[in-house]
Amino acid sequence: MKLINKMSIRVFLSLMFVVMISCKEQSSNISEESSTNETGHPSLILTAQGVKEIRSNLGQIPIFDKTLAAAKKEIDAAIESGFDVPVPKDYSGGYSHETHKKNYVLMQKAGALYQILQDDKYAKYVKDMLFEYAKQYPTLPVHPKTRSYARGKLFWQCLNDSNWLVYTSQAYDCIYNYLTEDERKTLETDLFRPFADHISKDNPQFFNRVHNHATWGNVAVGMIALVMDDDVLLDRALNGVKDDSYNPNEKDNDGGYIRKDGQKIGFYANVNEPFSPDGYFTEGPYYQRYASYPFLIFAQALENKKPEHKVFEFKDGVLLKSINALLNLSDADGEFFLLNDSQKGMSYFNSSLISTVDIGYHFGGNNPELLSIAKKQDEVTLDDAGLAVALGIKEGKEKPFVKKSIELSDGANGDEGAVGILRSDGLELVFKYTAHGLSHGHYDKLSYALFEDGDEVVQDYGMGRFVNIEQKGGGNYLKENKTWAKQTIAHNTVVQNEKSQFSGKYDIGSKYHSNKYIFSVNNDSLQVASAKEENAYPGTKLHRTMVTIKDSDLDNQYILDIMKVESENRNQYDLPFYFLGHIMQTSFEYSKYNVPQILGKSDGYQHLFKEASATVKGENIKLNWLLNNKFYSYSAVTSKNDEVILGRIGANDPDYNLRNEQTLILRKKNVKNALYVSTIESHGTYNPVSELALNAYSNIEHVSVILDTKEYTAIQVVSKNKKQRLFIISNQNNDEQAEHKLTINNKEYTWKGPYKLTQNK
Amino acid sequence: MKLINKMSIRVFLSLMFVVMISCKEQSSNISEESSTNETGHPSLILTAQGVKEIRSNLGQIPIFDKTLAAAKKEIDAAIESGFDVPVPKDYSGGYSHETHKKNYVLMQKAGALYQILQDDKYAKYVKDMLFEYAKQYPTLPVHPKTRSYARGKLFWQCLNDSNWLVYTSQAYDCIYNYLTEDERKTLETDLFRPFADHISKDNPQFFNRVHNHATWGNVAVGMIALVMDDDVLLDRALNGVKDDSYNPNEKDNDGGYIRKDGQKIGFYANVNEPFSPDGYFTEGPYYQRYASYPFLIFAQALENKKPEHKVFEFKDGVLLKSINALLNLSDADGEFFLLNDSQKGMSYFNSSLISTVDIGYHFGGNNPELLSIAKKQDEVTLDDAGLAVALGIKEGKEKPFVKKSIELSDGANGDEGAVGILRSDGLELVFKYTAHGLSHGHYDKLSYALFEDGDEVVQDYGMGRFVNIEQKGGGNYLKENKTWAKQTIAHNTVVQNEKSQFSGKYDIGSKYHSNKYIFSVNNDSLQVASAKEENAYPGTKLHRTMVTIKDSDLDNQYILDIMKVESENRNQYDLPFYFLGHIMQTSFEYSKYNVPQILGKSDGYQHLFKEASATVKGENIKLNWLLNNKFYSYSAVTSKNDEVILGRIGANDPDYNLRNEQTLILRKKNVKNALYVSTIESHGTYNPVSELALNAYSNIEHVSVILDTKEYTAIQVVSKNKKQRLFIISNQNNDEQAEHKLTINNKEYTWKGPYKLTQNK
Repeated sequence: MKLINKMSIRVFLSLMFVVMISCKEQSSNISEESSTNETGHPSLILTAQGVKEIRSNLGQIPIFDKTLAAAKKEIDAAIESGFDVPVPKDYSGGYSHETHKKNYVLMQKAGALYQILQDDKYAKYVKDMLFEYAKQYPTLPVHPKTRSYARGKLFWQCLNDSNWLVYTSQAYDCIYNYLTEDERKTLETDLFRPFADHISKDNPQFFNRVHNHATWGNVAVGMIALVMDDDVLLDRALNGVKDDSYNPNEKDNDGGYIRKDGQKIGFYANVNEPFSPDGYFTEGPYYQRYASYPFLIFAQALENKKPEHKVFEFKDGVLLKSINALLNLSDADGEFFLLNDSQKGMSYFNSSLISTVDIGYHFGGNNPELLSIAKKQDEVTLDDAGLAVALGIKEGKEKPFVKKSIELSDGANGDEGAVGILRSDGLELVFKYTAHGLSHGHYDKLSYALFEDGDEVVQDYGMGRFVNIEQKGGGNYLKENKTWAKQTIAHNTVVQNEKSQFSGKYDIGSKYHSNKYIFSVNNDSLQVASAKEENAYPGTKLHRTMVTIKDSDLDNQYILDIMKVESENRNQYDLPFYFLGHIMQTSFEYSKYNVPQILGKSDGYQHLFKEASATVKGENIKLNWLLNNKFYSYSAVTSKNDEVILGRIGANDPDYNLRNEQTLILRKKNVKNALYVSTIESHGTYNPVSELALNAYSNIEHVSVILDTKEYTAIQVVSKNKKQRLFIISNQNNDEQAEHKLTINNKEYTWKGPYKLTQNK
Repeated sequence: MKLINKMSIRVFLSLMFVVMISCKEQSSNISEESSTNETGHPSLILTAQGVKEIRSNLGQIPIFDKTLAAAKKEIDAAIESGFDVPVPKDYSGGYSHETHKKNYVLMQKAGALYQILQDDKYAKYVKDMLFEYAKQYPTLPVHPKTRSYARGKLFWQCLNDSNWLVYTSQAYDCIYNYLTEDERKTLETDLFRPFADHISKDNPQFFNRVHNHATWGNVAVGMIALVMDDDVLLDRALNGVKDDSYNPNEKDNDGGYIRKDGQKIGFYANVNEPFSPDGYFTEGPYYQRYASYPFLIFAQALENKKPEHKVFEFKDGVLLKSINALLNLSDADGEFFLLNDSQKGMSYFNSSLISTVDIGYHFGGNNPELLSIAKKQDEVTLDDAGLAVALGIKEGKEKPFVKKSIELSDGANGDEGAVGILRSDGLELVFKYTAHGLSHGHYDKLSYALFEDGDEVVQDYGMGRFVNIEQKGGGNYLKENKTWAKQTIAHNTVVQNEKSQFSGKYDIGSKYHSNKYIFSVNNDSLQVASAKEENAYPGTKLHRTMVTIKDSDLDNQYILDIMKVESENRNQYDLPFYFLGHIMQTSFEYSKYNVPQILGKSDGYQHLFKEASATVKGENIKLNWLLNNKFYSYSAVTSKNDEVILGRIGANDPDYNLRNEQTLILRKKNVKNALYVSTIESHGTYNPVSELALNAYSNIEHVSVILDTKEYTAIQVVSKNKKQRLFIISNQNNDEQAEHKLTINNKEYTWKGPYKLTQNK
């Protein structure tokens, strides 16, 4: 029934287009030639040739036709209701901010509609709005809101001004030939050139960086340079503003340094530095999603207009690789994993990913797996790339985009750690052993998060921000982002002496990175990711190994987590476990305080309530909980006098900015070395309709440390049905060819490579 | 694509059946006649005639064929793996409990399969299991677990034993003719008769009640009486155990009285008393869902076997009306509203509702709206009723089940208050002014809950229980159900002097009910429900009016809530507001405590943390919050010195049994009378993918009380765009024909009927 309806709608839309286009062609006063004449426009995103092909396919490319119909409906309504170019005044969420933001999107779409439908009303709409901006712009002071280290003119920060120019350049390119030479001169003199100068020459602390801000700035200037065919301006975009003076100690609003001494600048530097050879963007997927649009839209424009730059071949094709990396950094629902500053719920359905996927397909060798993502997105860009995707889908070329376990190196040279993703049936484990991630980095080396079927189970908190929700600090970063979300204790990794890693200092954190030790995923039943961090706490070495194990003897797979801490000094270690859901049962007795206490004074501890605690007697503790009608269990090895803390986020939160979620912290006091070992299982389900609980209990009876030396660590897992497994890891030799021989309890084990799993019974 | 696949599967299934049935017919050693011979079996749920019709339609009734295939697959697997009849030992969730529960479902299904597929293996499976029970039963003591006021033998409570017999009777009916007379005699002598006696004669405190427990008991005895054609036993089922002696002060485990003096007993009494003439079940929809199965399965059996009882005509067809009432007590997703003890998530997809809907269709005049529910359920009962539904769906007869605003009276005579449901576009407001609801009742007269698009927005907490999750108190009621969930402060209604209504005493609460005052829903733009409660607090009268208003001047509709309190004495009044979601903004300044305080000592207050408070200066307070990416606002009129408390559930909760959700409490101290007035709006949306916030703010600028006398209350609502509306209610005259004349601020208002809404500007 649904299918038939959907198909009928498509047929209807197709017919509608035929009618629409023939009408429009009559009313248009430009000939196809005049809109794509020898001045070479459009040539950035839409090209003259592309427009011809699109027009010849209209009505026969369902996903393109649908996107076009939606854009037409939107722009027709916008033209009907008129536009406003308000005096700049507000932060994000406020009227002037949101209106200028809306305007550039409308212009960009109207420009594309003008080319595709060849109806002058769209060109006129863009022209009228541009002239309104050209009238205002020369009179504008810097934006009245003072929070930014680089204030824009239309917006409170140059970043948003750059967004505006990236989109508007495309609109200008589309209506370039519609304008007279005088009109173009007015726009360029009063609006585009001073606009480009403000975000570059006037704000080198913004433009001359390696940072997503600078990327937008570079691309904005580059895009308008390409439209105006201005090679001087293009050089500024590609290589930065020359001869700027800047203070090397200056920081931006997020606490990030402006730039390192001697660092290269401009677009190419912004591609080279944050992207690893694998295409991982060092700030993390949330910001890659944001940055990918300017990177790729400009690469596309440059490739179309000046193919001699071979931008897609730069750094061994890293821009195209980055698309694959980004898609792999999403869960089963397409939502991005939370690494560093990230808002939950952002996904590959974001509009910038529509461009990303379409450009990746069109310029990256027509990978059919990308078509399946485009099909889910159910939208394409209204340009040559979108046409290619629409045709690919129409021709049924798509293949499933299969996300496997993958390690993505970090660092410009790929030697600054990595993100390791272990995927095993419905489980996705995201293990972080990267570099710091620039100013959006969090202090959480060797932390992880766990997802099942697209739901977060053991969470990364994400960022302390409600993007564009004006009620919450104007939609900007909240102070709790710094005091809580960035701190180590907000993550699933070790905290020493209640202080964040690298003392929570950006200057220190950004000097170091973790190191990969093992990433071995060829065996679906036994996948191992292991990494080391030796700089987070001077004198202390951290080594974490995360393993997914499928065991035919057990009803469910499990994750084995081994965190080895070795220090020269006696310390307190805390390992938090941010499970989401409702506690069903614990194997240990805890006493809940009458009213919660505050866990600590600084480094994020001031935001945690201590609700209950227990001193354990050794052996194991088990936590059983329910989330989304699934039962989970956490089983951890404990030592005598370990303290278990049940905590909740939300202390010192005067404005209810935090989410009041739970954690379990395993605390070891006054020890030099510590070995944290635990398993996580997803083992059962609850159905609130049938009220049936299935497999509500853990299948693991006991976890224990059989051996732990500098050289080797051996962990035994005993299941409820009395089967024993032993996992041995070599702690100092990760050579895959090395032969090992080890005697434990009079039994000799020999194997090749850095780890071994053996079944004792 | 999906559609085609689904259809192919159905075609395949149909073919499979034809093959399957012809094979089975050869292997069956009973002829169609012998399985439905003159001894008149089956005759309860499946009938001889029904079996014939089912068999002649097999393979051509997709929804029935699908259900049958699923049952066949399940039972074939069960036969393959064998059964266990363990020694009774556990509470719910434990092995023996869950196994006996599984067994009766398997037997019931296997019996039906035997009739429909006529394959002896199903009859043998039932027979073998029954004989195993017959072997054990005579040796069984009462169940070893002692928590119940009426212990069963197979289960810890007679309730579950009754469940067993209701299902097993159906299985016995289906294989009756497969058994020899001797075999039947053994089963009846060793198992069925003593089983029926245990849950009736041996436990009159369970059987002779008006309560869902007794309903199951009566029906269990009635079902087996019908199979055995034993009129004496049937009379016991219909009219109770004669000459029982009982203690009128005895209570059950939930604190409910066993029965009132002189109360009628037996099945008919259990239909008569809890169901109002509108079909509302006084315990609420969660328990009606549970009870509806025995009511309707027995009614069906009685109608089939002894139509002279005219059971479906009893009390003007109340059993059929109850089906319509129950379906109307569900939200947009089919989940039941939470009235009294209820677990969230229960819905009309529950298996007992499959029977309910099918029986309602088959015996209730083939209402085509029920077919649309059955179609969503995608399953039918494997009997005559299920066949009727399957044929109806196959023939495309279904019509949408449209849920409108509706008032459902409570009380055997319909004069003990009601539930009023106001539905307005996506909003569903459930307003409770009922009787107590027997032992599952909560102390929350004049409380309400609000749903939008199937999600609860202003919540009823539901019950303190995780049904069948053994980790949580054996899956049974938790102590917090009594100390928290039943208490008044856990609900959205007034609490006087921090004491629950009716002193939180069942004896008192069950004597009274609230009274309907207005229920007027003919105008879609202005719907009014109003009710009074004069016994919850002696000397204090409560009158609440809830209004849905759609105003063409406003972007969104809103709910106006007027709670008028009049007392002879000075009191403290608390009105909690259990919004779900994250606080975005408040119009008032509050100070959050360093660590939360505990709000009070008893009556549920001991479970609430006081996180923050504010003393307001009069005028209005506004709370803006975000839930499921929707923005909501609550605007309340406040008086000088009112205290606003921001609270959170979870104090004195040593086992993490409670959900830590928020509330806002508006407290008025040391006053005789109080008028609480507020509006609730759903006005905006947030999209985490586009990061766009639309209409994030309330559209209501100001709410004020213009007049408040014994006779009239007039509330003014001023919108952001300065439009004013005045709502006037007559507090003492609800005559729809009465003429009113009232002068407010020198302006005269005249109208007819109990309320008026006027637009001033």
